[in-house]
Amino acid sequence: MRQLFIASLLAAVPLLAHADAADDAIEAREGYMKMLSINMATLAGTAKGEIPFDQAAVTAAASNIEALSKYNTVPALFIPGSGPADGKETEALPAVWEKPEEFAAKYTAFQTAAAGAGEAVAGGQDALGPVLQKLGGACKACHDDFRKAD
Amino acid sequence: MRQLFIASLLAAVPLLAHADAADDAIEAREGYMKMLSINMATLAGTAKGEIPFDQAAVTAAASNIEALSKYNTVPALFIPGSGPADGKETEALPAVWEKPEEFAAKYTAFQTAAAGAGEAVAGGQDALGPVLQKLGGACKACHDDFRKAD
Repeated sequence: MRQLFIASLLAAVPLLAHADAADDAIEAREGYMKMLSINMATLAGTAKGEIPFDQAAVTAAASNIEALSKYNTVPALFIPGSGPADGKETEALPAVWEKPEEFAAKYTAFQTAAAGAGEAVAGGQDALGPVLQKLGGACKACHDDFRKAD
Repeated sequence: MRQLFIASLLAAVPLLAHADAADDAIEAREGYMKMLSINMATLAGTAKGEIPFDQAAVTAAASNIEALSKYNTVPALFIPGSGPADGKETEALPAVWEKPEEFAAKYTAFQTAAAGAGEAVAGGQDALGPVLQKLGGACKACHDDFRKAD
């Protein structure tokens, strides 16, 4: 009975489209970084005055970054076999796999920087600078050591 | 002084690598769905007994899904110009752009289904079924109408 129940509900669960876990991890982490980037662009563009100030948009962007930072296993997406040494096209440097604890620590630092970001930008245009500085600093600290230079 | 401060901190902010907003949105949303899928696979595999029960892994997976559900602007990633009618390779159906309110409502339903998922699976193996049923149901409800059939 229980097995039948489980089987029937699993029919509704969308499973991985293909079996290559490394490619799945690369696609997942690239999308993750792209989402961060899209929301950072909203904050940065607003801070620079290129985007007219819109409190709702700024709060949504900062809250999105905060939500993404609560995804706890981003470093786990850099699974064995998904690096440049494995012939994969990726911006991740070999250091990700050579220094996993330092890499995980950089992610924890980003999580700390992002905590409360949604609330922190509620103070209007002037509140953006300090939030961007914290977030941008955490991004850069990790990218410097673990991502290919542009 | 203020402009200088903003300019110096923006130098640290990683901006979008290229200017095609539609391609960025597609990459972002595909990574988002892939992250959901990876975590759903952990829950489903454990429910089926294919993955040995590991409370920490199950809690992390359910918490990750909950964190992703707090990304508030997923429907906004389906920006104009990023659909099949625009010649883009995407699993999204034209219905996404034809019925944006229904599409957004499906996302809201997923957010409701995912709320509390991390806590809900704390009850061990037997707690998995109801959580999977809620999450899987929300996934399927949206995919049925808005994603290409496999």
